[in-house]
Amino acid sequence: MGGDKAPNMVIEGVEIAIKTLTDVRFLLYGDEAKMIPLLDRFKAARAVSEVRHTDDVVTNEEKPGQALRSGRNSSMRLAINAVGDGEAAGVVSAGNTGALMAMAKFVLKTLPGIARPAIATYLPTQTGDTVMLDLGANVNCNADNLIQFAVMGEVFARNVLGIQHPSVGILNVGAEGLKGNEAVKQAAQILQNSNLPIQFYGFVEGDDIGAGTVDVIVTDGFTGNIALKTAEGTAKVFGTFLKEALTSTLISKLGAILARPALERFKMRVDPRRYNGATFLGLNGICVKSHGGTDALGFANAIDVAVEMVRDGLIDSIKTDLKYLSEDSSTIEDAQTAVN
Amino acid sequence: MGGDKAPNMVIEGVEIAIKTLTDVRFLLYGDEAKMIPLLDRFKAARAVSEVRHTDDVVTNEEKPGQALRSGRNSSMRLAINAVGDGEAAGVVSAGNTGALMAMAKFVLKTLPGIARPAIATYLPTQTGDTVMLDLGANVNCNADNLIQFAVMGEVFARNVLGIQHPSVGILNVGAEGLKGNEAVKQAAQILQNSNLPIQFYGFVEGDDIGAGTVDVIVTDGFTGNIALKTAEGTAKVFGTFLKEALTSTLISKLGAILARPALERFKMRVDPRRYNGATFLGLNGICVKSHGGTDALGFANAIDVAVEMVRDGLIDSIKTDLKYLSEDSSTIEDAQTAVN
Repeated sequence: MGGDKAPNMVIEGVEIAIKTLTDVRFLLYGDEAKMIPLLDRFKAARAVSEVRHTDDVVTNEEKPGQALRSGRNSSMRLAINAVGDGEAAGVVSAGNTGALMAMAKFVLKTLPGIARPAIATYLPTQTGDTVMLDLGANVNCNADNLIQFAVMGEVFARNVLGIQHPSVGILNVGAEGLKGNEAVKQAAQILQNSNLPIQFYGFVEGDDIGAGTVDVIVTDGFTGNIALKTAEGTAKVFGTFLKEALTSTLISKLGAILARPALERFKMRVDPRRYNGATFLGLNGICVKSHGGTDALGFANAIDVAVEMVRDGLIDSIKTDLKYLSEDSSTIEDAQTAVN
Repeated sequence: MGGDKAPNMVIEGVEIAIKTLTDVRFLLYGDEAKMIPLLDRFKAARAVSEVRHTDDVVTNEEKPGQALRSGRNSSMRLAINAVGDGEAAGVVSAGNTGALMAMAKFVLKTLPGIARPAIATYLPTQTGDTVMLDLGANVNCNADNLIQFAVMGEVFARNVLGIQHPSVGILNVGAEGLKGNEAVKQAAQILQNSNLPIQFYGFVEGDDIGAGTVDVIVTDGFTGNIALKTAEGTAKVFGTFLKEALTSTLISKLGAILARPALERFKMRVDPRRYNGATFLGLNGICVKSHGGTDALGFANAIDVAVEMVRDGLIDSIKTDLKYLSEDSSTIEDAQTAVN
């Protein structure tokens, strides 16, 4: 029931997603009076879905704590419970991000070795896709948080994006070791000296996101959220200016008509719907947050992300790598002492 | 002598700048053996320039403190001294940013009421140009710093961009008052309750930069630097994808040829050289930092920015508004007590 165009775009999203997915079934939580007529229209979705009725929804205005206390029968909470109970392999929601994170943390629990889960997504770059995290779950992060994000992001890049030896960079205001705040300096020093099976690149800057310099970009949730939204906003202003230019004269309009298939391919390549579906990493369960304003195509992509993570055994891979982190913790403590 | 293509692009930059500037004269500090042959080629520049020879230069690798101690006869330092001595109205450099800031602070001094100067620039948005600061001078900022940035950014938007009543927003991870780190929350609360002559909008998010939601965006130097470079990187990846699409087929190439004048206008509109020239705000003197990698056209724009600030009497305007800030300081202290 979450998202601007729910439940329509959710059910149509299922219809689109199953065109390329086999052996996936859906539990749809929400208002059956709204969902059943939609399922009559989307017959392929109906064939793989089961409706679980509840009247209660989490609104976008609810604070996380409030949703946690009073939303026990909400569609969001019941969907997360299905993952907690082992009935579902993962949950996808376009609803209230803070509430989803609070409920998912409460029900699914954080993985051992993870202080705080992070929000991760992947983005188009000059050289392919790059994973970035945290995108807003944690406004303030210390070096330990960043190191845990590095481990989880690396596993995501390896498992979900299929990159064999992903390189990991920490977002900073310069490439040199002396720049930046205490958290990034300490995290970089620790990652440089650790025995973790991570190919640590060092610091990267804002323009390295688009350049695709590394496969995984680690940052605190304040900076990550602002960087991601700045990229989205820049893409939008770029698109507007391009459209204005191409429709400015008759000749340019004719040129745009000839170039239309190419321009469509370009548009698809930077289409935010293709990158919809942010993952909550660090939980003992798969939870994907779709953009609230997306449409069915975007929601279908978020479903794909969740299915991919389930099939790739992402949680188990993260658990394995977190063991290295705990084995490495004496090294990390030594390094921290050296830094302090 | 600073910048990848100096001194050529500096002198050619003067040649370009004076096409549209009248009554401006230049003191060129650096190696006369390199500069004089260039001035023989750029005769318009020669007519308005005086060469001041020095062998010493600040390299890009020098730390700010090191440059401050050992660069007393560097071209950068002598150029700043000319402003300090009142011989020049402003200084423009494409050299080492940290060294330039350290020397400018030492020679020109910080304005009364400003704890730390900030780096500001303006960017293209959907609705016009927006000023953003700090872009990297201060990695860690408290609420006081952010409020001072707000005052200075507002004066810049009013004087240099000619916006009558500029709106000011603080960059954050959400629009609601409860989100963000302590510094932004406190600064917002103070600006909301202050008597400063500032039209305070509230919090803005990363995508509001490109959307042009406000005229001035205030942020700490860590986030601001990363946001600015993320925008640059996104514009670059967008440009690459567009070029790849338009050259992918014969028909799309033909379309691109027809649309070329429109595409050129589009390219010009997002050309980073048009936005080259970051201003050090909060100093008792005009100091503009050009991008080190720019060309003559970009450097000419940085000269324009400096001349505009001198002619608009930017420093005096900032001084006037800082008086409001000190008069308002009792209100601010009350608000701070209320927040704490």
